[in-house]
Amino acid sequence: MNSIFLEEIRSQPEVLARRLESGWAEVEEVAARIRRQRPAALLLAARGSSDHAATYAKYLFEIRNRLPVALAAPSAFTLYGSPPRLEGLAVLAISQSGASPDVAAVVEEARRQSRPAFAIVNERASRLGRAADVVVPMGAGRERSVPASKTYTASLLCLAMLSWALDPDPDFRAAIESLPCAAAAALESDAGRLAEAVEGRRLAAIGRGYHLATAQEVALKVTETSYLLAEARSVADFMHGPIAAVDPELPVLLLEAAGPARADMRRLGRRLEEQGVCVLRIGDRLRPEARSVRVRTGLPEALTPIPFAVAGQLFGEPLPYVKTT
Amino acid sequence: MNSIFLEEIRSQPEVLARRLESGWAEVEEVAARIRRQRPAALLLAARGSSDHAATYAKYLFEIRNRLPVALAAPSAFTLYGSPPRLEGLAVLAISQSGASPDVAAVVEEARRQSRPAFAIVNERASRLGRAADVVVPMGAGRERSVPASKTYTASLLCLAMLSWALDPDPDFRAAIESLPCAAAAALESDAGRLAEAVEGRRLAAIGRGYHLATAQEVALKVTETSYLLAEARSVADFMHGPIAAVDPELPVLLLEAAGPARADMRRLGRRLEEQGVCVLRIGDRLRPEARSVRVRTGLPEALTPIPFAVAGQLFGEPLPYVKTT
Repeated sequence: MNSIFLEEIRSQPEVLARRLESGWAEVEEVAARIRRQRPAALLLAARGSSDHAATYAKYLFEIRNRLPVALAAPSAFTLYGSPPRLEGLAVLAISQSGASPDVAAVVEEARRQSRPAFAIVNERASRLGRAADVVVPMGAGRERSVPASKTYTASLLCLAMLSWALDPDPDFRAAIESLPCAAAAALESDAGRLAEAVEGRRLAAIGRGYHLATAQEVALKVTETSYLLAEARSVADFMHGPIAAVDPELPVLLLEAAGPARADMRRLGRRLEEQGVCVLRIGDRLRPEARSVRVRTGLPEALTPIPFAVAGQLFGEPLPYVKTT
Repeated sequence: MNSIFLEEIRSQPEVLARRLESGWAEVEEVAARIRRQRPAALLLAARGSSDHAATYAKYLFEIRNRLPVALAAPSAFTLYGSPPRLEGLAVLAISQSGASPDVAAVVEEARRQSRPAFAIVNERASRLGRAADVVVPMGAGRERSVPASKTYTASLLCLAMLSWALDPDPDFRAAIESLPCAAAAALESDAGRLAEAVEGRRLAAIGRGYHLATAQEVALKVTETSYLLAEARSVADFMHGPIAAVDPELPVLLLEAAGPARADMRRLGRRLEEQGVCVLRIGDRLRPEARSVRVRTGLPEALTPIPFAVAGQLFGEPLPYVKTT
């Protein structure tokens, strides 16, 4: 299983490049409809890794497009028989398989209420693919590994393309076009060696802003590949509680992208190190050291979650080997 | 410190009763403004325990009032200098102290954009109390313990009162009036004894629907009082990843309220027990057993998070004693 995971991790520069080539038509169609309808907020529906992509979308659309984002609680649609009124909203679902019944239920409810509903899907011939008004294909090819990799970064790319289409800007477009290259650079990083410092059965992954999504995704990867109990938090939430639970046996991974959130991340890192905690770092401007990996992205912060996710996958991938030796 | 925590836990029936007596005027004022303005969604801003109250509000307003709820990402308001457009939205902040600058920033931004902004606050003479159009006071009295207890349940009560005021219904009102009694019954439960089964440094707390909030709050209490790394998840998210990481050393607490979510909770519990996991349960209809505590609530599911939170506090409270013996 793991070699397939690694193979799919390595395929990401090519997957992203193919997605960029295959055209922007569907993304521009979604953007045109959103501009026409002017929803007060976008309601996102997703599960698992796609839910982390939705976290990324929340920051991206709110900060770059100033469009408020709500994350759907699918059980309000499926379990209680009284779904929220969607007047003034548009729905965007994200799913690799398109088969998750509760994600599809949110899109189907939007259709019932005559609200626009879009979907980013890898498997177009799925319940979700059939239910949405416009489908943005991930175009990642079949994903065989259970820990998802390429469909996560392809989802983020589709979201970045949609953000661009809503508010076009040549610099942002050029940065998007460079993402396959940034993903290749992340593959060249030696993020995997950070795993050697992880002992025990626990890990905390911490990000802020755009990289809350990366923290969530890395925590899930590590849990899926290595059976660690990994927990993802924003800096603010971590300071509100779990900081009390840190000890030298709980390694903490910090996602430190250059940007407005970095000062908080660095402050937290210093405080944890003073407490004797094993602090690991993935960043784009930090000095490479035993426990710090630098991913050269050359990207605006809003796009760094794609190469950082690739580095996070490399970090998650070798953990089982560390544990069994 | 801990005796103050216990004292404040025990004061909750009285705190809730006082809040019910002190009148419904502010809650009805907020409801009247929301009805007049008909927002497409309510944007909630909160941190820490209040953020768990916001999770409760999401399910309550979406299911009972069919009003969509978005949880604000405060850093989009404070760090990036480009806050989302709030047209068509109304803001509701929840905070014990009213002093959290990022929560206040969301309300202040709503005022700048001429959007209605409300706050549920314990300390009225705070930055948040001054910034909001209408303040709903928690009325919990000064909270001295750092792990919050009475302000959490008082927040939930204020939210339930607001839900009633938006869609009045005599049965729901009667059930709200019985909450002090339900909290007293939860205090009589022996939820504290569940803590005896917790060994090691980890815990997972799991709920679905309304009790995702309870799971979050219990996980934070346990982290604050006992320095465990406790993680809260919905059933769906747990099945998507962390289920791979369970082992006999990771006890799992299930919040099992009677209602549409219970079947999923029971299925998960059975599966975990088959895997040899130590499963603890708090519920209102289950059979009391060594690892199951029954809280007799007599309440509709939407209100059970208040007595369940009280039971969860009792569970969290004795953990330090268990650990030091």
